[in-house]
Amino acid sequence: MAMVCLSDFEAHAKKYLPKMAWDFFAAGADDCSTRDENILAYKRIRFRPRVLRDVSMVDIRTKLLGTEISFPIGIAPTGFHQLAWPDGEKSTARAARAMNTCYIASTYSTCTLEEISEAAPGGLRWFQLYIYRNRAVSQQLVRRAEALGFQGLVLTADLPYTGKRRDDVRNGFRLPPHMKLKNLEGAFEVCKMSLLDPSVTWSDIHWLRSLTNLPIIVKGILTKEDAELAVRHGVEGIIVSNHGGRQLDGGPATIDALVEVVEAVQGRVEVYLDGGIRTGSNVLKALALGAKCVFVGRPALWGLAYKGEEGVQEVLRILQDEFRLSMALAG
Amino acid sequence: MAMVCLSDFEAHAKKYLPKMAWDFFAAGADDCSTRDENILAYKRIRFRPRVLRDVSMVDIRTKLLGTEISFPIGIAPTGFHQLAWPDGEKSTARAARAMNTCYIASTYSTCTLEEISEAAPGGLRWFQLYIYRNRAVSQQLVRRAEALGFQGLVLTADLPYTGKRRDDVRNGFRLPPHMKLKNLEGAFEVCKMSLLDPSVTWSDIHWLRSLTNLPIIVKGILTKEDAELAVRHGVEGIIVSNHGGRQLDGGPATIDALVEVVEAVQGRVEVYLDGGIRTGSNVLKALALGAKCVFVGRPALWGLAYKGEEGVQEVLRILQDEFRLSMALAG
Amino acid sequence: MAMVCLSDFEAHAKKYLPKMAWDFFAAGADDCSTRDENILAYKRIRFRPRVLRDVSMVDIRTKLLGTEISFPIGIAPTGFHQLAWPDGEKSTARAARAMNTCYIASTYSTCTLEEISEAAPGGLRWFQLYIYRNRAVSQQLVRRAEALGFQGLVLTADLPYTGKRRDDVRNGFRLPPHMKLKNLEGAFEVCKMSLLDPSVTWSDIHWLRSLTNLPIIVKGILTKEDAELAVRHGVEGIIVSNHGGRQLDGGPATIDALVEVVEAVQGRVEVYLDGGIRTGSNVLKALALGAKCVFVGRPALWGLAYKGEEGVQEVLRILQDEFRLSMALAG
Amino acid sequence: MAMVCLSDFEAHAKKYLPKMAWDFFAAGADDCSTRDENILAYKRIRFRPRVLRDVSMVDIRTKLLGTEISFPIGIAPTGFHQLAWPDGEKSTARAARAMNTCYIASTYSTCTLEEISEAAPGGLRWFQLYIYRNRAVSQQLVRRAEALGFQGLVLTADLPYTGKRRDDVRNGFRLPPHMKLKNLEGAFEVCKMSLLDPSVTWSDIHWLRSLTNLPIIVKGILTKEDAELAVRHGVEGIIVSNHGGRQLDGGPATIDALVEVVEAVQGRVEVYLDGGIRTGSNVLKALALGAKCVFVGRPALWGLAYKGEEGVQEVLRILQDEFRLSMALAG
Repeated sequence: MAMVCLSDFEAHAKKYLPKMAWDFFAAGADDCSTRDENILAYKRIRFRPRVLRDVSMVDIRTKLLGTEISFPIGIAPTGFHQLAWPDGEKSTARAARAMNTCYIASTYSTCTLEEISEAAPGGLRWFQLYIYRNRAVSQQLVRRAEALGFQGLVLTADLPYTGKRRDDVRNGFRLPPHMKLKNLEGAFEVCKMSLLDPSVTWSDIHWLRSLTNLPIIVKGILTKEDAELAVRHGVEGIIVSNHGGRQLDGGPATIDALVEVVEAVQGRVEVYLDGGIRTGSNVLKALALGAKCVFVGRPALWGLAYKGEEGVQEVLRILQDEFRLSMALAG
Repeated sequence: MAMVCLSDFEAHAKKYLPKMAWDFFAAGADDCSTRDENILAYKRIRFRPRVLRDVSMVDIRTKLLGTEISFPIGIAPTGFHQLAWPDGEKSTARAARAMNTCYIASTYSTCTLEEISEAAPGGLRWFQLYIYRNRAVSQQLVRRAEALGFQGLVLTADLPYTGKRRDDVRNGFRLPPHMKLKNLEGAFEVCKMSLLDPSVTWSDIHWLRSLTNLPIIVKGILTKEDAELAVRHGVEGIIVSNHGGRQLDGGPATIDALVEVVEAVQGRVEVYLDGGIRTGSNVLKALALGAKCVFVGRPALWGLAYKGEEGVQEVLRILQDEFRLSMALAG
Repeated sequence: MAMVCLSDFEAHAKKYLPKMAWDFFAAGADDCSTRDENILAYKRIRFRPRVLRDVSMVDIRTKLLGTEISFPIGIAPTGFHQLAWPDGEKSTARAARAMNTCYIASTYSTCTLEEISEAAPGGLRWFQLYIYRNRAVSQQLVRRAEALGFQGLVLTADLPYTGKRRDDVRNGFRLPPHMKLKNLEGAFEVCKMSLLDPSVTWSDIHWLRSLTNLPIIVKGILTKEDAELAVRHGVEGIIVSNHGGRQLDGGPATIDALVEVVEAVQGRVEVYLDGGIRTGSNVLKALALGAKCVFVGRPALWGLAYKGEEGVQEVLRILQDEFRLSMALAG
Repeated sequence: MAMVCLSDFEAHAKKYLPKMAWDFFAAGADDCSTRDENILAYKRIRFRPRVLRDVSMVDIRTKLLGTEISFPIGIAPTGFHQLAWPDGEKSTARAARAMNTCYIASTYSTCTLEEISEAAPGGLRWFQLYIYRNRAVSQQLVRRAEALGFQGLVLTADLPYTGKRRDDVRNGFRLPPHMKLKNLEGAFEVCKMSLLDPSVTWSDIHWLRSLTNLPIIVKGILTKEDAELAVRHGVEGIIVSNHGGRQLDGGPATIDALVEVVEAVQGRVEVYLDGGIRTGSNVLKALALGAKCVFVGRPALWGLAYKGEEGVQEVLRILQDEFRLSMALAG
C-alpha cells in the first residue's frame, strides 16, 4: 500500500492499532463536533491563487522564537506514544530532529525527558506541562526540562479537568501495565489527572516565570480576550488550540479562532496553531491567516504507528512537500 | 452495555420499548423538521471558551421561583409514563426528588397526582395543565395540585388541538386497556383531547389566577410578542417550548427562539427552555443565552424505560456531570 | 397501508404506476435541481407561532376572483390523467367539485372539455391553454371552454419549448395508442408540442382578451419584472410557477420567487402559487407570504392513481385538514 | 444505453476506460475539493427566468477574437487523447471542426500538431503551451503552430509545478510505451514536466509576443489582480480556469472567480471559462456572468472514449441543444 497522503496513515493506524489505542488517539469530547469542525473549517476557506510569479525558489524555512526550523510544521504534544510504537517518544524525537523541526514533548510521555533527550541530542524541543496541585512536581519537571536543553515551556491551559471522551469511558481506557507515565514516577503515589490543579489562573504564569529562563508558550487560547491576557502576562508564544477537540465540545475550529487571536496579538508574540492539519494546503491557509507555524498531533501518531521514527518522518516529509507545492501553486 | 451518554439510553429505549410506545414518545409533527431542528440548532452555536480561570469550585445550583435545586435541569411534562415503566410517574417523581430537581407532572399522567405526591413526598413539583371546555375539570385539577403541595402551575399554551404525528395515526395509538388517564377519571365520560378548549386566550390567565395562589408558568412561547403578553398578564415564568416538535411543524428550534424571548422579557420573569437537550454542553448553551433552567422530556422517558427511577437518575446524573464539566472547561 | 400524508400517496404511485407514467409525472428538467428546490425551500422557512389565541373557529374558505372555494388549495393543470386512472380528468373534475375547490383543466387532457364538464357539472373550473402557431386552434379552445362554463383562462407562459426531462427521453415517452390528446383531435394532423408558438409575447394577451370575457391568469411568473408586465397587460391573476421544475433547471423555488412577485404586485391582481406543496404547513407558508391560493399538481395525480376520484378527494382532504390544523397551531 | 446527458458519457468512460486512464482524466489535486467545487458552485446560482418573450429565433453563435463559431462551447486543452481513443487528438480536432467550434490543442498531445492539422484542415484551433527552461523548445512550438494555421496561443499560467493527484501517484501513472508526447520528441532527452520553467513571470509575455503575431490568451487566472496584470501585459484573452481542480486544491470554483475577473477586465479583453460545465444551463450561467465562451475538458474526453470523433460530436451537440433550450426558456 502506497502512503501518498496523511489519510493513508490514518487508515493504516485504524486498521493495525489495538482498538483501545486507536480510540484513545482518535477520541473527541462528547459528539466530537469540535474535533470534526477542526477539519471541516479548512474546506470553507478558499485561496485566491496568483499566477506567473517566479516560484523557482520557494523558501519554507521559519524561526520559532529565534531558532530556525526547515519548515513550519512541528509536532504537537500528545501522550502515550508507546501505545503506537515500542520506542515511543524516543522515535518521535529522532524523527523531528532528522527533519529539523520542533517536537513538543508531553508530560504524559511514556519515556522520560532524559530518555528523549538522549535519543535525539541537539534537536529542538519544547516541554509541555500542566500545573499540579503539588507545585513541587511541576517545579521539578520545569527544572529537569531546562537542564536537558529543552528550549521552551508549553503550558496547557485548557485542561483543568479532562474532557469526556465517550469511547475511552466505554473501553475503560488505561495504560497497559508495562507502560508508565515515566516523567511522573515517584512524584505521586497514583498518577491521576485529578492531581491537576483546576484553580490555576493567569497569575500562575508569574510563578512559572520565576522558576525558569525558558520562554513560555500558552496552549489552548481561542479568543481575543485570552490572547490579550496572554500578551499582558508576558508569554512568548500562543498556540491556538482546542486540544484536538478532546476537551470542550462545541468550541470553534482552531483555524476559525486563529483570525481573532492574530488580530488581537498584533505581532507582539508569536502565534501558532494545532488541530485539523491534514494537507500542506491546510498549513498554507493557517500561515496565510497569521500563524507562524503549525503543529500536528494525530498525524504524527499515525506515522509512529506505521513505522516508528521512519513513519513520523514520512508524514512530515509529505506535509512539507505538499506545503512547498501549495506555496508555489498559490504564487 | 455501558450507559455513557444520553444517546445510549435512546438506543436502548428504541430497542426494548414496544414499537407503539417508542413511536409515541419519539413522534414529531408532520415531517418532524422542528423536532430535529431542536437538536441541530445546538450544533450551530459555538462557545468562546476562556482558559486559566479558577474553576476549582463550580457552583451549578440554581433557584426556580425561589426554590433551590441542585442543578439547572428539570423534567419536562410528558404523558403516559407507564408505557415506559410499570410504576410510571411515581418512579419519575422519586428520581427527581432524589436528584433534588424539579419534576413537572403532566395532566396526562398514568398515575394520579395523589399517587405521585405520596411516592415522593417533599419533592419540588409543578403541575402541567390544559384548560378544558368544562372549566370545572381544570379548576378541580388546580385545587388538587395545590392541596398536594405542587408549587407551580404550568399552562400548556401550544395545544389547542393535537399536532399530526403520522406514526401515531398509522399505529392507531391508544393507551393499553390497563392504563388510564387517572387524573381525569370520572371527569369526562370519554377522555379525549377534543375536550380541550381551543378558544382559550390570554384572558384565561386571569381566571386561572383567581383559582390559586400558585405561580403560573406558561409553556409554549416562541416569540417576543407572546413573551411580552405573558409578562403583561402577570405570569411568573415562561417555558420556551415547541412541545418537542410535536405540534406545529416548521416552527423554530427552541434554542433559536430563546434569544428573542430573553431579550423581550428583560428579566421581568424567569425564562426556561425545553427541547433538544442531549448533552451538558447543550444545557450550558441554553443558560449562556439566558435560560434559568432547562427541562428534558424524552431523555427522562428513556431513563425510565431503562431502569425506572434508577434510570431517570442516571440520565440526570450524566447531564449534571456533563454540564458541570462544560462549565469548567468553558471557563 | 394507511394513507396518512401525501408521501404515502407518492410511494403508492411509484410502486403501482407503470414506470413510463411514473417517470413522466415525476420528471424534472436536467438535474431536477429546481424540482427538488421547490420542496427544500419550504424547509428553510420557519413560522413564528403565536399562542393563546381563540382558534375555536378557523375559517379556511377563500375566493378565487370572486368565487368562493372551501379551502385555498386547487388542482394545478397537468396532462394525461388517463395514465393514472381510466376515467382520467373526469375523475379529477368530480373530486374537485366534491371538495368545492377549483380544478384547472389542461389542454393536454385525455378527456375532452365537454366530457369533463359533463362529468362534474357546476364545478369551478379554469382552462389552461397554450398559444399555437395556428391561432385558430387556440381561439377555438377558448370559445369551447367559455361555452362550457369554465370561469378562467390560465395561459402557460413558460413553455415556448418543452424542457429536457431525461427519463422521458430515455423511455421514449409517448401516450399509449388508446389515449388521445382529445381536445386537439382534428386540430392538427399530428399533435406535437412543436406546434406551440415560441414567438408569443405579452402583446398576445391583448389578442386573447379580444376573444373572450373570461378572466386571464398567467402561469409561470417568477420575477418582479414579469409580474409588473402581467399587471400592466391587464391580467386578473398570476400563478407563480416553474412548471414543477420541468422546464428551466436552475430557476428559483416558487416559494422563494413568491415574495418578490407579491411585493411587485401590491394587491393589484391575485397571486397564486404551485410547486412543492406537500403538507398543510406548506400551504400556510405560501399564504403567509402573500398567495391567495395554492395549486397542487403531482399530489393530485398520486391521488388519482390511488383510487381515482376518491383518491384525489383523500389527498385534498388531508391537505385541507393539515392546513386547518396548522392555522390553528400557528395562532 | 441512450446517451442523453453528459453524465451518461461520464458513466460510460468510467466503466470502459482502463483504470489508470480514467483516474488520470478524473484526477483532482489532494482532496479534490476544488475539482468538485467547480460543479457544486453552479448549483448555488439561480436564474431569474423571464417569460412571454419572442424566442422563436435563438442565435447562439459567437465570435472568438473575431472568428465566428456556431455556439459558445469549445474544447479545452487536455493531454494524452490516445488514452481515450486510438486516433487521439486527430479525432477531437475533426469533431470540433465538424461542429464548427474551437479546439485548443495541448502541448501534451499524443499526435503532432502537424497530424492534427492534417486531420482537420481549416478548423479553428488554438495551441496551448508552457514555457520551458529551454526557451528554444517553446519558441519552436510557437513557430510550428503559427505555420500550421493555429489562430491563437494559450499560455498555461497555473502549472509552474504539477499538482499532487493522489491516484496518479498510487497508480504510478505514465504513458503506455506506444504513446508519445509527440510534439516534444527530440526536444528533450527525457520528457518530464520538471523541464517546465517555474520562474516564468508576466514579463515572459513580452518574449512570447516577440515570437509571433498570434493573439495570446492566458489560461489559469482566478483573481482580479491577475486579470488586471494580464490586460496590462497586452494579452488578447483570459481563460478563467483552475486546471480542472488538478493544481492547487482549495482555490475557488471558476464560475465564482469569473465574476471578479469580468468586473476587473471591463471588456478590455475577452474572458472565457473552463471547469465544471456539465449542462447547457451551466453554459448559460457562465455567459450570463460575463464569459464570452466556455471550454469543456473532461466531457470531450468522455465523448472521445465513447466513439472517437463521433462521440465528441455527440457531447458537443447535447451541450449545444441544452444551451439553446436554456436560452429560450430563460427568455
